Amino acid sequence: MTGTKIINSPDDFVRETMEGIIAAHGDKVRLLDDDFRVLLSNYDAPEGKVGIVTAGGSGHLPLFLGYVGDGMLDGCAVGEVFASPAAEKMTEMIRACDRGAGVLCLYGNYNGDKFNFQMATEEVEFDDIETLHLLGRDDVASSPAENADKRRGVAGILYGFKIAGAAAAQMKSLQEVHDLAARALENTRTMGVALTPCIVPKVGTPTFEIPEGKIEVGMGIHGEAGIEVRDMMTADEVAATILEAIEADMPLASGDEVSVMVNGLGGTPLEEQYIVYRAVHTALADKGVAVVMPHIGEFATSMEMAGLSVTVCKLDAELKELLLAPAKTPFYTNLNK
Amino acid sequence: MTGTKIINSPDDFVRETMEGIIAAHGDKVRLLDDDFRVLLSNYDAPEGKVGIVTAGGSGHLPLFLGYVGDGMLDGCAVGEVFASPAAEKMTEMIRACDRGAGVLCLYGNYNGDKFNFQMATEEVEFDDIETLHLLGRDDVASSPAENADKRRGVAGILYGFKIAGAAAAQMKSLQEVHDLAARALENTRTMGVALTPCIVPKVGTPTFEIPEGKIEVGMGIHGEAGIEVRDMMTADEVAATILEAIEADMPLASGDEVSVMVNGLGGTPLEEQYIVYRAVHTALADKGVAVVMPHIGEFATSMEMAGLSVTVCKLDAELKELLLAPAKTPFYTNLNK
Repeated sequence: MTGTKIINSPDDFVRETMEGIIAAHGDKVRLLDDDFRVLLSNYDAPEGKVGIVTAGGSGHLPLFLGYVGDGMLDGCAVGEVFASPAAEKMTEMIRACDRGAGVLCLYGNYNGDKFNFQMATEEVEFDDIETLHLLGRDDVASSPAENADKRRGVAGILYGFKIAGAAAAQMKSLQEVHDLAARALENTRTMGVALTPCIVPKVGTPTFEIPEGKIEVGMGIHGEAGIEVRDMMTADEVAATILEAIEADMPLASGDEVSVMVNGLGGTPLEEQYIVYRAVHTALADKGVAVVMPHIGEFATSMEMAGLSVTVCKLDAELKELLLAPAKTPFYTNLNK
Repeated sequence: MTGTKIINSPDDFVRETMEGIIAAHGDKVRLLDDDFRVLLSNYDAPEGKVGIVTAGGSGHLPLFLGYVGDGMLDGCAVGEVFASPAAEKMTEMIRACDRGAGVLCLYGNYNGDKFNFQMATEEVEFDDIETLHLLGRDDVASSPAENADKRRGVAGILYGFKIAGAAAAQMKSLQEVHDLAARALENTRTMGVALTPCIVPKVGTPTFEIPEGKIEVGMGIHGEAGIEVRDMMTADEVAATILEAIEADMPLASGDEVSVMVNGLGGTPLEEQYIVYRAVHTALADKGVAVVMPHIGEFATSMEMAGLSVTVCKLDAELKELLLAPAKTPFYTNLNK
């Protein structure tokens, strides 16, 4: 027992979460093995379909595990809370997800994940499995535009999963799937704000603090420092501040079509997410920017952290079609109607 | 700004939440009028379909607004945070949802909602609109079995919405729809635990406190006192305590089929909800009870309150078919496959 957490032993946090997911969604997903670290889709993946896999630390549900299923990810490996899974797990996952057309490894720009995925893809070369890497780097607060390749991947990677998954379902080639998802991610920007820290179960105390009455602008989903700590802002100010940072990096113009995600970090109620979405929607509408398929809810959390992020994904006709394509996973369902 | 809330003025909390919902989901739902208190389904309701409506205080998203749409609610009226909407709003909603076959008013057992719905249904008698009332009373902690009619309605009312909505979609009569939903609710029990309070925006401070390291067993979704305050428990102990209370009231036996809902109250991460679901699922499986269509996530919240509830809904063949029937609302989608 740790703080206000309803858990058993911190050592069992990840395994028991996986057990719960399998108990609830065993029709859609299955475990790779009894190590409880890799989830595979139960849906048919025909020979010749490109595999889409990801990996990352635990503690971000629905990210990453929740997006394994039909039309999104074929596999996901998780590590301990906020820690990368082992390279061997990634290797086994890639092997399990290859249908002869190669595997796209799509993950956030974090050193542990990069290093381990690199080892894993070198390993599967011996099996003649072709792989490509694609990194989520959507957090505009984490590095200035001139160093955009250093940016962290946060909630916006969901657009990569969705578009890669839809492209793979259309039986496109590995290079085509990669290029479409890359185009989606190049047109995706996110920034977040946080109001409270979260507690890693094995640590038991907050790894950082935000003073009462303050809001940290640009904080990462592991509590990485943001751009600045400000006095508490209104919802409209939060929306304006985030949109300003996103648009400074990726200008939006009248006639553009975008998808918007307002993502709760864990402790912020859905009502507040809708109040912020309202402000974002209005600001975009005033500019002549149309929103297609908004996402409001918890998509990439930081356990009980209070706060939210806003993601804008600029669409073209092809990306829009792939975004709207059907998908069915334990945590993400799109009916396309 | 109130505590850690990302809002504008507390006075605008409900209206701006509604504006956000309409901005995001205007394809599925619409406002009754510019008072921003009644949401109506945008899906076709043919003449002769029974209308299903609910009402209640704000602050519980996705309850109640989120379940308006195809195959569930035709209309929902909300009041201020934790306060009943006005009777006139309910009257207008009932009128808007009648298709000549009458309207089922399905809501939680709270005095304000009961009183106002009573006034509203007396009013629509002048329009020759037939209505029936059905109350959610699933919270076993709120009153002993001999006074079960005094129990509060909490997350389990969702099973009533789903089964009533599916029965209405099959064009059953008002009495048939009522009786099926009543049978579902008679076989539904819930109990919750809470670890932190929540803050009503217009109040600005917690309306009650739970001491650090303690857990309140049986707390209501407005912070109503529970059965007892205990030292913090493990997830397995929480699951066992809740199941014991539910089964004392509604025995479960080998061969039974149930749906289970593990409902986060707002501040408790999804990982913990799955850890608790795992324990519930295992305990039921050990007893020979099969779980059909589990629900894990936030369904009926109390803004940022940390804690969760577990609901068990015992099914028969007819209720199971209605539960599995398709539904599509902004916050609840069931594909039935």
